[in-house]
Amino acid sequence: MLQHGRQALESQPFSKLVGAMLTRFDTEGTELRVPIVDALKQQHGFVHGGVLSYVADNALTFAGGAALGTGVVTSEYKINYVRPAIGQEIVARAAAVHGGKSQAVCRCEVFVVSEGKETLCAIAQGTIARLPAAPSVE
Amino acid sequence: MLQHGRQALESQPFSKLVGAMLTRFDTEGTELRVPIVDALKQQHGFVHGGVLSYVADNALTFAGGAALGTGVVTSEYKINYVRPAIGQEIVARAAAVHGGKSQAVCRCEVFVVSEGKETLCAIAQGTIARLPAAPSVE
Amino acid sequence: MLQHGRQALESQPFSKLVGAMLTRFDTEGTELRVPIVDALKQQHGFVHGGVLSYVADNALTFAGGAALGTGVVTSEYKINYVRPAIGQEIVARAAAVHGGKSQAVCRCEVFVVSEGKETLCAIAQGTIARLPAAPSVE
Amino acid sequence: MLQHGRQALESQPFSKLVGAMLTRFDTEGTELRVPIVDALKQQHGFVHGGVLSYVADNALTFAGGAALGTGVVTSEYKINYVRPAIGQEIVARAAAVHGGKSQAVCRCEVFVVSEGKETLCAIAQGTIARLPAAPSVE
Repeated sequence: MLQHGRQALESQPFSKLVGAMLTRFDTEGTELRVPIVDALKQQHGFVHGGVLSYVADNALTFAGGAALGTGVVTSEYKINYVRPAIGQEIVARAAAVHGGKSQAVCRCEVFVVSEGKETLCAIAQGTIARLPAAPSVE
Repeated sequence: MLQHGRQALESQPFSKLVGAMLTRFDTEGTELRVPIVDALKQQHGFVHGGVLSYVADNALTFAGGAALGTGVVTSEYKINYVRPAIGQEIVARAAAVHGGKSQAVCRCEVFVVSEGKETLCAIAQGTIARLPAAPSVE
Repeated sequence: MLQHGRQALESQPFSKLVGAMLTRFDTEGTELRVPIVDALKQQHGFVHGGVLSYVADNALTFAGGAALGTGVVTSEYKINYVRPAIGQEIVARAAAVHGGKSQAVCRCEVFVVSEGKETLCAIAQGTIARLPAAPSVE
Repeated sequence: MLQHGRQALESQPFSKLVGAMLTRFDTEGTELRVPIVDALKQQHGFVHGGVLSYVADNALTFAGGAALGTGVVTSEYKINYVRPAIGQEIVARAAAVHGGKSQAVCRCEVFVVSEGKETLCAIAQGTIARLPAAPSVE
């Protein structure tokens, strides 16, 4: 299942641009990691909020996909930034809180890792929707 | 004021990585544009949700900065994706709905431009906080 | 259509407890009004946030119902309170920004009316989902 | 501390109208309970979403107040409804995930209790702000 998720992530050009890695992907939860490089920062040297949003969004999507067991898309989410992210790596962990027939509601915590210590920098909550089955081509 | 905003955007390495341009920045509103290139897409050829989030977040931040007239940071926001983004350019427009002493509440609409026609692909709402004044060094 | 909406509102015991009235309900938008009485306040004499949430939630639901033309339910929403509500009446206006097959994304502005003047006190954004058709009983 | 919180809740006329009770209030978390009566329902016999919003909002506020140790107000929050609430009692549990100098970010889970069994019906996430100190009267 992790292998399948990694292929999905690998097939997203933007995820490759950001440098995201999928380090956990099962029905209990999802973990994405992003090594912090200068290109991901804003003007004060912190990781740009857009990167934290990207990783939260993607972790929520994977968590919803794991819960629904199918192709999914993020419908909506909300994120609160709680601390500037300064360190060597971003880690986002997400899990479904509720999975229904057509959508899952998921939560995510985003940490920054600095010298081996994790510090919370954002939390998110959102809705992941099952993609409609592809229409038959024949 | 637009010149000042462009310098701020230019000083964000992640905004340069994404290729964002500030095309409006005044107290009435803010506009950011991102030309769509392959590196910004997900596996189905649409613009990655993380890019839409980045541009919504940043447009909200600039709108809050224009309203508060000072250094600011996004505290939180929420985004609803309403359509896949397929086209040549992303345009995000944001404005403050309310500006108080310490924070502004802003809204943003994100469009995709395809063959000159704008189509709504996401809407966002969030809180932009005034940065505490830098402590005196002397 | 307004008559139909009023019957729906009238059939909600909690809406009667709060004293909400539907004053507009068409595909362009929805308006709910709540006269301010002491029972709707919190300890500082302002309208309780829960009342503003109720009215925003319900206005979003009606706006989604008008857009989707069917029975609906609020999936999720987000609200920012921007000012304490002091006055004689609460007015919430909502409209769909996007209506798809299964859900609508709507926005709402909540005002307090004091001596005839409207002041913004909250804004909201959310997703309204079409209710699954009732299973046939026969 | 629980006694102090109960006095605050008791002083909110709307909380009395809804029938909310504070059953936990410490720095680790907050719990509010609302017995389900017909006046709190919508037209299908479920607890009205506005009631779930009210209780989530208020539980978030108390959790933020416990974290910040002072008078507070909810700035904003987001709620996802995940199941219709049918049963005898609503229970909302909230806790601060992060507490800063001027605000706390909190999460809340709302359950319905039916025949002694709790079922999740909504989750929420929001920002609670410290109230500015009252200006000196002298």
